[in-house]
Amino acid sequence: MIKIDLQTRFSDFDMLGHLNNVSYAQFMDLGKTDYFARLSGGKIDWQDVTLVLANLNINYLAQTLYGEPLHVLTELDSIGNKSLTLHQQVINSATGQVKADAKAVMVNIDLKAGVTMPITDEWRERIARLEGNNPA
Amino acid sequence: MIKIDLQTRFSDFDMLGHLNNVSYAQFMDLGKTDYFARLSGGKIDWQDVTLVLANLNINYLAQTLYGEPLHVLTELDSIGNKSLTLHQQVINSATGQVKADAKAVMVNIDLKAGVTMPITDEWRERIARLEGNNPA
Amino acid sequence: MIKIDLQTRFSDFDMLGHLNNVSYAQFMDLGKTDYFARLSGGKIDWQDVTLVLANLNINYLAQTLYGEPLHVLTELDSIGNKSLTLHQQVINSATGQVKADAKAVMVNIDLKAGVTMPITDEWRERIARLEGNNPA
Amino acid sequence: MIKIDLQTRFSDFDMLGHLNNVSYAQFMDLGKTDYFARLSGGKIDWQDVTLVLANLNINYLAQTLYGEPLHVLTELDSIGNKSLTLHQQVINSATGQVKADAKAVMVNIDLKAGVTMPITDEWRERIARLEGNNPA
Repeated sequence: MIKIDLQTRFSDFDMLGHLNNVSYAQFMDLGKTDYFARLSGGKIDWQDVTLVLANLNINYLAQTLYGEPLHVLTELDSIGNKSLTLHQQVINSATGQVKADAKAVMVNIDLKAGVTMPITDEWRERIARLEGNNPA
Repeated sequence: MIKIDLQTRFSDFDMLGHLNNVSYAQFMDLGKTDYFARLSGGKIDWQDVTLVLANLNINYLAQTLYGEPLHVLTELDSIGNKSLTLHQQVINSATGQVKADAKAVMVNIDLKAGVTMPITDEWRERIARLEGNNPA
Repeated sequence: MIKIDLQTRFSDFDMLGHLNNVSYAQFMDLGKTDYFARLSGGKIDWQDVTLVLANLNINYLAQTLYGEPLHVLTELDSIGNKSLTLHQQVINSATGQVKADAKAVMVNIDLKAGVTMPITDEWRERIARLEGNNPA
Repeated sequence: MIKIDLQTRFSDFDMLGHLNNVSYAQFMDLGKTDYFARLSGGKIDWQDVTLVLANLNINYLAQTLYGEPLHVLTELDSIGNKSLTLHQQVINSATGQVKADAKAVMVNIDLKAGVTMPITDEWRERIARLEGNNPA
Protein backbone atom coordinates (compact mmCIF):
# COMPACT_ATOMS: atom_id res chain seq x y z
CA MET A 1 0.00 0.00 0.00
CA ILE A 2 1.25 3.47 -0.83
CA LYS A 3 0.14 6.82 0.55
CA ILE A 4 0.31 10.25 -1.08
CA ASP A 5 -0.60 13.53 0.55
CA LEU A 6 -2.82 15.54 -1.78
CA GLN A 7 -2.56 19.19 -2.74
CA THR A 8 -5.96 20.68 -3.50
CA ARG A 9 -6.46 23.62 -5.84
CA PHE A 10 -9.02 26.42 -5.70
CA SER A 11 -10.61 25.10 -8.90
CA ASP A 12 -11.15 21.65 -7.29
CA PHE A 13 -14.12 23.02 -5.35
CA ASP A 14 -17.54 23.54 -6.88
CA MET A 15 -20.42 25.97 -6.45
CA LEU A 16 -21.57 24.14 -3.33
CA GLY A 17 -18.13 24.50 -1.75
CA HIS A 18 -17.52 20.75 -2.09
CA LEU A 19 -14.58 18.97 -3.65
CA ASN A 20 -15.74 18.15 -7.18
CA ASN A 21 -16.22 14.47 -8.07
CA VAL A 22 -13.92 15.13 -11.03
CA SER A 23 -11.09 16.05 -8.67
CA TYR A 24 -11.53 12.78 -6.79
CA ALA A 25 -10.90 11.02 -10.10
CA GLN A 26 -7.70 13.09 -10.49
CA PHE A 27 -6.62 12.08 -6.99
CA MET A 28 -7.24 8.42 -7.78
CA ASP A 29 -5.05 8.96 -10.87
CA LEU A 30 -2.31 10.45 -8.68
CA GLY A 31 -2.36 7.27 -6.62
CA LYS A 32 -2.24 5.07 -9.70
CA THR A 33 0.57 6.95 -11.44
CA ASP A 34 2.65 6.91 -8.26
CA TYR A 35 1.96 3.20 -7.80
CA PHE A 36 3.19 2.40 -11.32
CA ALA A 37 6.13 4.80 -11.07
CA ARG A 38 7.30 2.91 -7.98
CA LEU A 39 6.85 -0.41 -9.77
CA SER A 40 8.98 0.97 -12.61
CA GLY A 41 11.69 2.06 -10.21
CA GLY A 42 11.05 5.79 -10.15
CA LYS A 43 10.96 7.15 -13.67
CA ILE A 44 8.12 6.06 -15.90
CA ASP A 45 7.76 6.38 -19.67
CA TRP A 46 4.03 6.67 -20.28
CA GLN A 47 4.48 5.65 -23.91
CA ASP A 48 5.56 2.21 -22.63
CA VAL A 49 2.76 1.71 -20.15
CA THR A 50 0.44 -1.10 -21.18
CA LEU A 51 -1.99 -1.10 -18.25
CA VAL A 52 -5.11 0.74 -19.33
CA LEU A 53 -8.01 1.78 -17.08
CA ALA A 54 -11.03 -0.37 -17.97
CA ASN A 55 -13.36 0.31 -15.03
CA LEU A 56 -13.48 2.88 -12.25
CA ASN A 57 -16.04 2.42 -9.51
CA ILE A 58 -16.07 5.23 -6.94
CA ASN A 59 -18.21 5.42 -3.81
CA TYR A 60 -18.52 9.00 -2.62
CA LEU A 61 -18.88 8.63 1.15
CA ALA A 62 -18.57 12.16 2.55
CA GLN A 63 -18.29 15.72 1.24
CA THR A 64 -14.88 17.42 1.42
CA LEU A 65 -14.70 21.12 2.23
CA TYR A 66 -11.99 23.60 1.24
CA GLY A 67 -9.00 23.33 3.56
CA GLU A 68 -9.44 19.71 4.67
CA PRO A 69 -6.08 17.85 4.58
CA LEU A 70 -6.33 14.78 2.34
CA HIS A 71 -4.30 11.77 1.27
CA VAL A 72 -4.92 8.90 -1.10
CA LEU A 73 -4.12 5.25 -0.35
CA THR A 74 -3.53 2.76 -3.19
CA GLU A 75 -3.08 -0.97 -2.85
CA LEU A 76 -3.48 -4.12 -4.91
CA ASP A 77 -6.94 -5.56 -4.54
CA SER A 78 -6.54 -8.60 -6.80
CA ILE A 79 -4.57 -9.73 -9.82
CA GLY A 80 -5.70 -11.95 -12.67
CA ASN A 81 -4.07 -13.25 -15.83
CA LYS A 82 -4.39 -10.11 -17.95
CA SER A 83 -5.73 -7.53 -15.50
CA LEU A 84 -5.36 -6.24 -11.98
CA THR A 85 -7.62 -4.34 -9.62
CA LEU A 86 -6.42 -1.52 -7.37
CA HIS A 87 -8.23 -0.43 -4.23
CA GLN A 88 -8.03 3.27 -3.43
CA GLN A 89 -9.28 5.58 -0.71
CA VAL A 90 -9.24 9.36 -0.32
CA ILE A 91 -9.06 10.13 3.40
CA ASN A 92 -9.09 13.22 5.63
CA SER A 93 -5.61 13.05 7.17
CA ALA A 94 -6.65 14.77 10.39
CA THR A 95 -9.80 12.84 11.23
CA GLY A 96 -9.31 9.59 9.30
CA GLN A 97 -12.73 10.03 7.67
CA VAL A 98 -12.91 8.13 4.39
CA LYS A 99 -14.19 10.52 1.71
CA ALA A 100 -14.19 8.17 -1.27
CA ASP A 101 -13.48 4.49 -1.79
CA ALA A 102 -12.75 3.17 -5.26
CA LYS A 103 -11.78 0.12 -7.23
CA ALA A 104 -9.97 0.50 -10.54
CA VAL A 105 -9.64 -2.38 -12.98
CA MET A 106 -6.62 -2.07 -15.25
CA VAL A 107 -6.17 -4.31 -18.26
CA ASN A 108 -2.81 -5.13 -19.81
CA ILE A 109 -3.02 -4.21 -23.49
CA ASP A 110 -0.63 -4.14 -26.43
CA LEU A 111 -1.91 -0.75 -27.65
CA LYS A 112 -0.47 -1.10 -31.16
CA ALA A 113 -1.87 -4.59 -31.79
CA GLY A 114 -5.00 -3.84 -29.75
CA VAL A 115 -4.93 -7.16 -27.92
CA THR A 116 -4.81 -8.01 -24.22
CA MET A 117 -1.63 -9.54 -22.84
CA PRO A 118 -0.82 -11.60 -19.74
CA ILE A 119 0.84 -9.66 -16.90
CA THR A 120 4.44 -10.83 -16.80
CA ASP A 121 6.02 -12.65 -13.86
CA GLU A 122 8.45 -9.77 -13.47
CA TRP A 123 5.59 -7.35 -12.84
CA ARG A 124 3.92 -9.79 -10.46
CA GLU A 125 7.12 -9.92 -8.45
CA ARG A 126 7.49 -6.14 -8.44
CA ILE A 127 3.91 -5.75 -7.24
CA ALA A 128 4.40 -8.36 -4.53
CA ARG A 129 7.54 -6.55 -3.40
CA LEU A 130 5.77 -3.17 -3.34
CA GLU A 131 2.93 -4.68 -1.33
CA GLY A 132 5.45 -6.01 1.20
CA ASN A 133 4.75 -9.59 0.33
CA ASN A 134 7.88 -10.65 -1.52
CA PRO A 135 7.41 -14.25 -2.70
CA ALA A 136 11.15 -14.77 -3.20
CA MET B 1 -33.34 9.84 -22.53
CA ILE B 2 -31.54 13.08 -23.32
CA LYS B 3 -28.62 13.70 -25.65
CA ILE B 4 -25.96 16.42 -25.49
CA ASP B 5 -23.26 17.04 -28.07
CA LEU B 6 -19.92 17.49 -26.31
CA GLN B 7 -17.29 20.14 -26.87
CA THR B 8 -13.81 18.84 -26.15
CA ARG B 9 -10.95 21.07 -25.05
CA PHE B 10 -7.23 20.77 -25.80
CA SER B 11 -6.57 20.08 -22.11
CA ASP B 12 -8.97 17.08 -22.18
CA PHE B 13 -6.33 14.99 -23.94
CA ASP B 14 -3.40 13.40 -22.14
CA MET B 15 0.21 12.57 -22.96
CA LEU B 16 -0.88 9.50 -24.90
CA GLY B 17 -3.21 11.60 -27.08
CA HIS B 18 -6.25 10.01 -25.46
CA LEU B 19 -9.24 11.69 -23.87
CA ASN B 20 -8.43 11.70 -20.16
CA ASN B 21 -10.62 9.57 -17.87
CA VAL B 22 -11.17 12.73 -15.83
CA SER B 23 -12.82 14.41 -18.81
CA TYR B 24 -15.21 11.48 -19.20
CA ALA B 25 -16.33 12.19 -15.64
CA GLN B 26 -16.91 15.83 -16.62
CA PHE B 27 -18.98 14.70 -19.61
CA MET B 28 -21.07 12.43 -17.39
CA ASP B 29 -21.60 15.50 -15.17
CA LEU B 30 -22.75 17.52 -18.20
CA GLY B 31 -25.36 14.86 -18.87
CA LYS B 32 -26.51 14.84 -15.25
CA THR B 33 -26.71 18.62 -14.87
CA ASP B 34 -28.70 18.90 -18.10
CA TYR B 35 -31.00 16.08 -16.99
CA PHE B 36 -31.79 17.84 -13.72
CA ALA B 37 -32.04 21.25 -15.35
CA ARG B 38 -34.75 19.85 -17.64
CA LEU B 39 -36.52 18.27 -14.67
CA SER B 40 -36.47 21.67 -12.99
CA GLY B 41 -37.93 23.36 -16.05
CA GLY B 42 -34.82 25.02 -17.42
CA LYS B 43 -33.17 27.08 -14.71
CA ILE B 44 -31.67 25.24 -11.78
CA ASP B 45 -30.53 26.60 -8.42
CA TRP B 46 -27.72 24.30 -7.33
CA GLN B 47 -28.14 25.41 -3.72
CA ASP B 48 -31.55 23.72 -3.76
CA VAL B 49 -30.47 20.46 -5.35
CA THR B 50 -30.76 17.56 -2.95
CA LEU B 51 -29.66 14.69 -5.19
CA VAL B 52 -26.04 13.90 -4.35
CA LEU B 53 -23.74 11.56 -6.29
CA ALA B 54 -23.11 8.47 -4.15
CA ASN B 55 -21.57 6.07 -6.67
CA LEU B 56 -20.12 6.42 -10.15
CA ASN B 57 -19.20 3.26 -12.03
CA ILE B 58 -17.60 3.89 -15.43
CA ASN B 59 -16.57 1.27 -17.97
CA TYR B 60 -13.99 2.67 -20.37
CA LEU B 61 -14.65 0.77 -23.58
CA ALA B 62 -12.55 2.51 -26.23
CA GLN B 63 -9.95 5.27 -26.44
CA THR B 64 -11.03 8.64 -27.84
CA LEU B 65 -8.62 10.61 -30.01
CA TYR B 66 -8.48 14.38 -30.52
CA GLY B 67 -11.07 15.49 -33.05
CA GLU B 68 -13.59 12.67 -32.62
CA PRO B 69 -17.16 14.05 -32.40
CA LEU B 70 -18.83 12.96 -29.16
CA HIS B 71 -22.18 13.09 -27.41
CA VAL B 72 -23.44 11.86 -24.06
CA LEU B 73 -26.74 10.04 -23.50
CA THR B 74 -28.44 10.12 -20.08
CA GLU B 75 -31.50 8.13 -19.05
CA LEU B 76 -33.14 6.81 -15.93
CA ASP B 77 -31.93 3.32 -15.11
CA SER B 78 -34.00 2.73 -11.96
CA ILE B 79 -35.61 4.65 -9.14
CA GLY B 80 -35.96 3.63 -5.51
CA ASN B 81 -37.44 5.23 -2.42
CA LYS B 82 -34.59 7.63 -1.63
CA SER B 83 -32.28 7.22 -4.59
CA LEU B 84 -32.20 6.91 -8.35
CA THR B 85 -29.72 5.49 -10.83
CA LEU B 86 -28.88 7.13 -14.15
CA HIS B 87 -27.42 5.25 -17.10
CA GLN B 88 -25.00 7.23 -19.27
CA GLN B 89 -22.97 6.65 -22.40
CA VAL B 90 -20.34 8.71 -24.19
CA ILE B 91 -20.55 7.88 -27.90
CA ASN B 92 -18.68 8.80 -31.10
CA SER B 93 -21.40 10.64 -33.03
CA ALA B 94 -20.01 9.67 -36.42
CA THR B 95 -19.43 5.95 -35.90
CA GLY B 96 -21.78 5.15 -33.02
CA GLN B 97 -18.90 3.55 -31.11
CA VAL B 98 -19.58 3.57 -27.37
CA LYS B 99 -16.54 5.03 -25.62
CA ALA B 100 -17.72 4.81 -22.02
CA ASP B 101 -20.75 3.39 -20.27
CA ALA B 102 -21.61 4.46 -16.74
CA LYS B 103 -24.12 4.15 -13.96
CA ALA B 104 -24.49 6.94 -11.42
CA VAL B 105 -26.36 6.44 -8.16
CA MET B 106 -27.77 9.65 -6.74
CA VAL B 107 -29.17 9.82 -3.23
CA ASN B 108 -31.74 12.36 -2.09
CA ILE B 109 -30.30 14.14 0.93
CA ASP B 110 -31.33 17.03 3.15
CA LEU B 111 -27.82 18.52 3.21
CA LYS B 112 -28.45 20.70 6.29
CA ALA B 113 -29.91 17.91 8.40
CA GLY B 114 -27.61 15.31 6.83
CA VAL B 115 -30.38 12.74 6.42
CA THR B 116 -31.71 10.94 3.35
CA MET B 117 -35.21 11.83 2.13
CA PRO B 118 -37.76 10.03 -0.07
CA ILE B 119 -37.94 11.28 -3.66
CA THR B 120 -41.23 13.17 -3.93
CA ASP B 121 -44.12 12.13 -6.18
CA GLU B 122 -43.74 15.40 -8.05
CA TRP B 123 -40.17 14.51 -9.04
CA ARG B 124 -41.22 10.98 -10.00
CA GLU B 125 -43.81 12.46 -12.33
CA ARG B 126 -41.33 14.92 -13.82
CA ILE B 127 -38.84 12.10 -14.45
CA ALA B 128 -41.53 9.90 -16.01
CA ARG B 129 -42.55 12.80 -18.27
CA LEU B 130 -38.93 13.46 -19.30
CA GLU B 131 -38.44 9.77 -20.06
CA GLY B 132 -41.55 9.84 -22.28
CA ASN B 133 -43.46 7.54 -20.02
CA ASN B 134 -45.98 9.85 -18.42
CA PRO B 135 -48.06 7.81 -15.91
CA ALA B 136 -50.90 10.36 -15.87
CA MET C 1 -12.22 36.47 -36.97
CA ILE C 2 -13.76 33.19 -35.89
CA LYS C 3 -16.48 32.53 -33.33
CA ILE C 4 -17.09 29.41 -31.24
CA ASP C 5 -20.02 28.84 -28.93
CA LEU C 6 -18.78 27.52 -25.59
CA GLN C 7 -20.09 24.61 -23.57
CA THR C 8 -19.57 25.16 -19.87
CA ARG C 9 -19.20 22.30 -17.38
CA PHE C 10 -20.32 22.09 -13.76
CA SER C 11 -16.68 21.97 -12.67
CA ASP C 12 -15.95 25.27 -14.46
CA PHE C 13 -17.62 27.18 -11.63
CA ASP C 14 -15.94 27.89 -8.32
CA MET C 15 -17.01 28.24 -4.70
CA LEU C 16 -18.25 31.76 -5.37
CA GLY C 17 -20.48 30.53 -8.20
CA HIS C 18 -18.26 32.29 -10.76
CA LEU C 19 -16.64 30.85 -13.86
CA ASN C 20 -13.10 30.01 -12.77
CA ASN C 21 -10.25 32.03 -14.31
CA VAL C 22 -8.72 28.68 -15.28
CA SER C 23 -11.73 27.89 -17.45
CA TYR C 24 -11.34 31.20 -19.27
CA ALA C 25 -7.84 30.04 -20.20
CA GLN C 26 -9.36 26.79 -21.54
CA PHE C 27 -11.86 28.79 -23.60
CA MET C 28 -9.06 30.92 -25.03
CA ASP C 29 -7.35 27.62 -25.94
CA LEU C 30 -10.53 26.46 -27.69
CA GLY C 31 -10.43 29.58 -29.81
CA LYS C 32 -6.74 29.12 -30.61
CA THR C 33 -6.99 25.43 -31.51
CA ASP C 34 -9.96 26.10 -33.76
CA TYR C 35 -8.14 29.00 -35.39
CA PHE C 36 -5.13 26.83 -36.22
CA ALA C 37 -7.28 23.88 -37.26
CA ARG C 38 -8.98 26.13 -39.82
CA LEU C 39 -5.60 27.39 -41.03
CA SER C 40 -4.54 23.76 -41.47
CA GLY C 41 -7.64 22.97 -43.48
CA GLY C 42 -9.63 21.10 -40.85
CA LYS C 43 -7.55 18.30 -39.37
CA ILE C 44 -4.54 19.27 -37.30
CA ASP C 45 -1.62 17.13 -36.16
CA TRP C 46 -0.47 18.68 -32.89
CA GLN C 47 2.94 17.00 -33.20
CA ASP C 48 3.57 19.24 -36.24
CA VAL C 49 2.45 22.50 -34.69
CA THR C 50 5.32 24.90 -34.24
CA LEU C 51 3.49 27.91 -32.80
CA VAL C 52 4.02 27.91 -29.06
CA LEU C 53 2.26 30.14 -26.53
CA ALA C 54 4.79 32.63 -25.16
CA ASN C 55 2.56 35.15 -23.41
CA LEU C 56 -1.07 35.23 -22.35
CA ASN C 57 -2.48 38.48 -21.03
CA ILE C 58 -6.10 38.25 -19.86
CA ASN C 59 -8.26 41.08 -18.59
CA TYR C 60 -11.14 39.73 -16.51
CA LEU C 61 -13.87 42.30 -17.09
CA ALA C 62 -17.02 40.76 -15.58
CA GLN C 63 -17.99 37.68 -13.57
CA THR C 64 -19.81 34.87 -15.38
CA LEU C 65 -22.53 32.96 -13.56
CA TYR C 66 -23.70 29.39 -14.17
CA GLY C 67 -26.06 29.22 -17.12
CA GLU C 68 -24.86 32.29 -19.04
CA PRO C 69 -24.47 31.52 -22.76
CA LEU C 70 -20.92 32.25 -23.93
CA HIS C 71 -18.84 32.37 -27.07
CA VAL C 72 -15.22 33.14 -27.80
CA LEU C 73 -13.96 35.33 -30.64
CA THR C 74 -10.44 34.93 -32.02
CA GLU C 75 -8.73 37.16 -34.56
CA LEU C 76 -5.27 38.14 -35.66
CA ASP C 77 -4.02 41.15 -33.76
CA SER C 78 -0.61 41.49 -35.41
CA ILE C 79 2.01 39.38 -37.09
CA GLY C 80 5.79 39.73 -36.96
CA ASN C 81 8.72 37.85 -38.45
CA LYS C 82 8.76 34.91 -36.03
CA SER C 83 5.64 35.46 -33.92
CA LEU C 84 2.02 36.46 -34.11
CA THR C 85 -0.46 37.88 -31.63
CA LEU C 86 -4.08 36.78 -31.39
CA HIS C 87 -6.82 38.89 -29.87
CA GLN C 88 -9.56 36.97 -28.07
CA GLN C 89 -12.76 37.78 -26.21
CA VAL C 90 -15.16 35.68 -24.18
CA ILE C 91 -18.63 37.22 -24.53
CA ASN C 92 -22.12 36.62 -23.16
CA SER C 93 -24.02 35.66 -26.33
CA ALA C 94 -27.33 37.01 -25.07
CA THR C 95 -26.26 40.41 -23.76
CA GLY C 96 -23.03 41.02 -25.67
CA GLN C 97 -21.23 41.73 -22.39
CA VAL C 98 -17.49 41.13 -22.75
CA LYS C 99 -16.38 38.87 -19.90
CA ALA C 100 -12.69 38.62 -20.71
CA ASP C 101 -10.38 40.17 -23.27
CA ALA C 102 -7.02 38.61 -24.02
CA LYS C 103 -3.96 38.81 -26.18
CA ALA C 104 -1.90 35.72 -26.83
CA VAL C 105 1.60 35.90 -28.30
CA MET C 106 2.60 32.75 -30.16
CA VAL C 107 6.17 32.18 -31.26
CA ASN C 108 7.15 29.93 -34.15
CA ILE C 109 9.62 27.40 -32.82
CA ASP C 110 11.43 24.36 -34.16
CA LEU C 111 10.81 22.32 -31.00
CA LYS C 112 13.53 19.75 -31.72
CA ALA C 113 16.23 22.29 -32.47
CA GLY C 114 14.89 24.72 -29.89
CA VAL C 115 15.24 27.75 -32.17
CA THR C 116 12.71 30.29 -33.40
CA MET C 117 11.76 30.25 -37.08
CA PRO C 118 10.22 32.81 -39.44
CA ILE C 119 6.52 32.32 -40.17
CA THR C 120 6.33 31.11 -43.77
CA ASP C 121 4.64 33.00 -46.57
CA GLU C 122 2.19 30.12 -46.97
CA TRP C 123 0.97 30.57 -43.40
CA ARG C 124 0.75 34.34 -43.85
CA GLU C 125 -1.48 33.80 -46.86
CA ARG C 126 -3.65 31.29 -45.02
CA ILE C 127 -4.06 33.70 -42.11
CA ALA C 128 -4.91 36.57 -44.46
CA ARG C 129 -7.50 34.36 -46.19
CA LEU C 130 -9.02 33.31 -42.86
CA GLU C 131 -9.22 36.94 -41.77
CA GLY C 132 -11.03 37.83 -45.00
CA ASN C 133 -8.24 40.01 -46.21
CA ASN C 134 -6.59 37.94 -48.93
CA PRO C 135 -3.57 39.87 -50.28
CA ALA C 136 -3.37 37.74 -53.45
CA MET D 1 7.56 36.13 -0.61
CA ILE D 2 6.06 32.72 -0.10
CA LYS D 3 6.95 29.39 -1.70
CA ILE D 4 4.75 26.37 -2.31
CA ASP D 5 5.90 23.04 -3.68
CA LEU D 6 3.54 21.91 -6.44
CA GLN D 7 1.96 18.51 -6.94
CA THR D 8 1.37 17.80 -10.61
CA ARG D 9 -1.37 15.47 -11.86
CA PHE D 10 -1.39 13.17 -14.87
CA SER D 11 -4.11 15.32 -16.45
CA ASP D 12 -1.90 18.43 -16.19
CA PHE D 13 0.11 17.26 -19.20
CA ASP D 14 -1.08 17.63 -22.77
CA MET D 15 -0.74 15.68 -26.01
CA LEU D 16 2.75 17.06 -26.52
CA GLY D 17 3.85 15.83 -23.09
CA HIS D 18 4.07 19.42 -21.83
CA LEU D 19 2.50 20.93 -18.74
CA ASN D 20 -0.66 22.58 -20.03
CA ASN D 21 -0.85 26.38 -19.88
CA VAL D 22 -4.13 25.92 -18.00
CA SER D 23 -2.30 24.12 -15.20
CA TYR D 24 0.14 27.01 -14.86
CA ALA D 25 -2.88 29.21 -14.19
CA GLN D 26 -3.99 26.75 -11.48
CA PHE D 27 -0.51 26.89 -9.93
CA MET D 28 -0.60 30.68 -9.92
CA ASP D 29 -3.97 30.35 -8.15
CA LEU D 30 -2.40 28.05 -5.56
CA GLY D 31 0.17 30.73 -4.83
CA LYS D 32 -2.49 33.43 -4.56
CA THR D 33 -4.85 31.46 -2.32
CA ASP D 34 -1.97 30.55 0.00
CA TYR D 35 -0.81 34.17 0.06
CA PHE D 36 -4.26 35.39 1.10
CA ALA D 37 -4.77 32.53 3.55
CA ARG D 38 -1.57 33.58 5.32
CA LEU D 39 -2.71 37.21 5.33
CA SER D 40 -5.96 36.05 6.92
CA GLY D 41 -4.11 34.11 9.59
CA GLY D 42 -4.61 30.59 8.26
CA LYS D 43 -8.28 29.94 7.64
CA ILE D 44 -9.96 31.87 4.87
CA ASP D 45 -13.65 32.33 4.14
CA TRP D 46 -13.87 32.80 0.37
CA GLN D 47 -17.29 34.42 0.71
CA ASP D 48 -15.58 37.32 2.50
CA VAL D 49 -12.73 37.79 0.06
CA THR D 50 -12.99 41.09 -1.77
CA LEU D 51 -9.84 40.97 -3.89
CA VAL D 52 -10.84 39.92 -7.39
CA LEU D 53 -8.48 38.98 -10.22
CA ALA D 54 -8.62 41.73 -12.85
CA ASN D 55 -5.61 40.91 -15.01
CA LEU D 56 -3.30 37.92 -15.37
CA ASN D 57 -0.24 38.29 -17.56
CA ILE D 58 1.81 35.10 -17.91
CA ASN D 59 5.09 34.70 -19.76
CA TYR D 60 5.68 31.05 -20.64
CA LEU D 61 9.46 30.76 -20.62
CA ALA D 62 10.18 27.04 -20.86
CA GLN D 63 8.27 23.80 -21.35
CA THR D 64 7.76 21.55 -18.32
CA LEU D 65 7.89 17.78 -18.78
CA TYR D 66 6.20 15.11 -16.68
CA GLY D 67 8.18 14.42 -13.51
CA GLU D 68 9.91 17.78 -13.15
CA PRO D 69 9.75 19.03 -9.53
CA LEU D 70 8.11 22.46 -9.36
CA HIS D 71 7.33 25.22 -6.91
CA VAL D 72 5.60 28.57 -7.17
CA LEU D 73 6.83 31.82 -5.64
CA THR D 74 4.42 34.66 -4.84
CA GLU D 75 5.33 38.14 -3.68
CA LEU D 76 3.91 41.62 -3.65
CA ASP D 77 4.91 43.55 -6.75
CA SER D 78 3.16 46.83 -5.97
CA ILE D 79 0.16 48.17 -4.08
CA GLY D 80 -2.12 51.02 -5.02
CA ASN D 81 -5.18 52.64 -3.45
CA LYS D 82 -7.76 50.04 -4.53
CA SER D 83 -5.64 47.30 -6.12
CA LEU D 84 -2.45 45.34 -5.69
CA THR D 85 -0.21 43.43 -8.06
CA LEU D 86 1.38 40.10 -7.23
CA HIS D 87 4.48 38.75 -8.94
CA GLN D 88 4.63 34.98 -9.37
CA GLN D 89 7.03 32.43 -10.80
CA VAL D 90 6.77 28.70 -11.43
CA ILE D 91 10.26 27.23 -11.09
CA ASN D 92 11.93 23.83 -11.50
CA SER D 93 13.05 23.11 -7.94
CA ALA D 94 16.03 21.02 -9.02
CA THR D 95 17.54 23.27 -11.68
CA GLY D 96 16.15 26.69 -10.75
CA GLN D 97 14.89 27.15 -14.30
CA VAL D 98 12.00 29.63 -14.40
CA LYS D 99 9.15 28.04 -16.33
CA ALA D 100 6.63 30.86 -16.13
CA ASP D 101 6.67 34.41 -14.80
CA ALA D 102 3.40 36.21 -14.12
CA LYS D 103 1.87 39.36 -12.76
CA ALA D 104 -1.63 39.31 -11.35
CA VAL D 105 -3.57 42.50 -10.70
CA MET D 106 -6.21 42.11 -7.99
CA VAL D 107 -8.82 44.78 -7.39
CA ASN D 108 -10.59 45.29 -4.08
CA ILE D 109 -14.32 45.11 -4.76
CA ASP D 110 -17.49 45.17 -2.70
CA LEU D 111 -19.11 42.36 -4.70
CA LYS D 112 -22.66 43.11 -3.52
CA ALA D 113 -22.50 46.82 -4.28
CA GLY D 114 -20.28 46.27 -7.31
CA VAL D 115 -17.94 49.13 -6.46
CA THR D 116 -14.20 49.23 -5.86
CA MET D 117 -12.97 49.92 -2.33
CA PRO D 118 -9.68 51.18 -0.90
CA ILE D 119 -7.43 48.50 0.59
CA THR D 120 -7.54 49.02 4.36
CA ASP D 121 -4.55 49.94 6.49
CA GLU D 122 -4.94 46.68 8.36
CA TRP D 123 -4.41 44.71 5.16
CA ARG D 124 -1.46 46.88 4.17
CA GLU D 125 0.16 46.09 7.50
CA ARG D 126 -0.53 42.39 7.16
CA ILE D 127 1.01 42.38 3.68
CA ALA D 128 4.05 44.31 4.88
CA ARG D 129 4.48 41.83 7.73
CA LEU D 130 4.18 38.85 5.36
CA GLU D 131 6.74 40.40 3.04
CA GLY D 132 9.12 40.85 5.97
CA ASN D 133 9.03 44.60 5.73
CA ASN D 134 6.93 45.64 8.70
CA PRO D 135 6.56 49.45 8.69
CA ALA D 136 5.54 49.56 12.36
